[in-house]
Amino acid sequence: MKVCVVGTGLMGGSLALDLKNKKLASHIVGVNRSFESNQWALDHGLVDQILPLEEAVLGVDLVVLSIPIDILNQMLPRVLDLIEPQTILIDLGSTKEGICKLVENHPKRSSYVATHPICGTENSGPSAAILDLYKDKICILCETSKSNPKAVEKVEKMFKEIGSSLIYMGAKEHDLHIAYVSHLSHVSSFALASAVLDKEKDTQNIFNMAGSGFASTVRLAKSSPQMWVPIFLNNKENLLESIDRFTQELSILRESIEKENQEKLLQYLKNANQIRKFLK
Amino acid sequence: MKVCVVGTGLMGGSLALDLKNKKLASHIVGVNRSFESNQWALDHGLVDQILPLEEAVLGVDLVVLSIPIDILNQMLPRVLDLIEPQTILIDLGSTKEGICKLVENHPKRSSYVATHPICGTENSGPSAAILDLYKDKICILCETSKSNPKAVEKVEKMFKEIGSSLIYMGAKEHDLHIAYVSHLSHVSSFALASAVLDKEKDTQNIFNMAGSGFASTVRLAKSSPQMWVPIFLNNKENLLESIDRFTQELSILRESIEKENQEKLLQYLKNANQIRKFLK
Repeated sequence: MKVCVVGTGLMGGSLALDLKNKKLASHIVGVNRSFESNQWALDHGLVDQILPLEEAVLGVDLVVLSIPIDILNQMLPRVLDLIEPQTILIDLGSTKEGICKLVENHPKRSSYVATHPICGTENSGPSAAILDLYKDKICILCETSKSNPKAVEKVEKMFKEIGSSLIYMGAKEHDLHIAYVSHLSHVSSFALASAVLDKEKDTQNIFNMAGSGFASTVRLAKSSPQMWVPIFLNNKENLLESIDRFTQELSILRESIEKENQEKLLQYLKNANQIRKFLK
Repeated sequence: MKVCVVGTGLMGGSLALDLKNKKLASHIVGVNRSFESNQWALDHGLVDQILPLEEAVLGVDLVVLSIPIDILNQMLPRVLDLIEPQTILIDLGSTKEGICKLVENHPKRSSYVATHPICGTENSGPSAAILDLYKDKICILCETSKSNPKAVEKVEKMFKEIGSSLIYMGAKEHDLHIAYVSHLSHVSSFALASAVLDKEKDTQNIFNMAGSGFASTVRLAKSSPQMWVPIFLNNKENLLESIDRFTQELSILRESIEKENQEKLLQYLKNANQIRKFLK
């Protein structure tokens, strides 16, 4: 299979590594905005060749768009225009409703398969690409009824071979739930990091007091602003709903602490403990 | 050294394991409220002997109180009454101001060294005890000027030998900062877990969508309610301040998303990114 990866950062670069490692791709063409990213991708064997977008998407079996959602919005219809009839197009974006709507009436809609692999780290860029990022992870496919069944089958096969399990979902449903189980966690981490940074200015000593619990809850605050600003804005309505619900929960918890309502507090924490059941 | 550990759960049990492993303790006496915990601690070699509190604290070089802060409040003055002049008493509690005030005028105050090892996991009870929990961790000593220098020296030596680094701090200062870098993270996790559980009732499928980011931010919501309710109440004023600051940050972030203020949002996330500098 010949593959074109547009954006060889954490997600696209890692996918390229896996496709090469599993011998699923015989040739990978990379496209990046910056010279540095292209050079890195070539030097580190993420891709075999760098070409301008218009040339890169021709003569390949699969085009992967792995770019921030705001750029993806501009690029998806254009790339769909460009690709040849037999080429499959996927994106790895974190929101799906807007992007699916954008191309719903495109004459080549059936060549496109909307995917969202639930993996990643707080790092970004080509140097963040790692082998096996997709292993033992979930990949969500949206609106597959609008894609060519053969294209869906090939995409499913590829993700399975690099170790992912598949879930199917409507794009609207996807965006609502992902707001709660992913985007809200990022908002919470960014806000927590800001609150603590603001309080504890220039005091490395204080951060020495922080244990693994703090590190765990603020880890996502290290994530790329360039990537997350567009995601937040793209999933605005669902995200605002989830932030409001979270703020309400915080305020319930705050009130129990303020009123020293031990029984209520204990019950609250016990209920929250049920998250154990749902986490691996 | 002969040691008595009151509460052989995660923290006390792990300390017992380390003291045995490093051959720092020749004999460890355990005290627990429940028969099951005592039996587990004996069966799994955490302790050599189980005795009632009044007998257990006699004839030992060190007594370690590793119990929830509400019970610690009741027990610390009583154990200080009971111990022999040469015995050192430490606690491993997560708040220090109240407890230090409680015994400030106790005739045996100098036998007591207030310590807070910054380690732990989201698990609890004797079965959660693990070897090397204290390795490469920070241990905070508070108000050491009120303790016998020889007692402080012995406690320092013990924590260093099990791999901890020491930080010194006033009790009031400790409680304020620990609210921000530990207790607030727990509040945030409990509230986040509750918000998501409330929205996503009985839908394992939705949690399958959750990636490692979500798991990381809600991990602390698995923590023991029996341990955390007393901590929250014990550090109430500092914790409320930190929750208010966090809520304010959330609301700033929410407003930028609602108004789609891209510039402000980008700047906010970039500032939050600075947390990288402070985390290992």
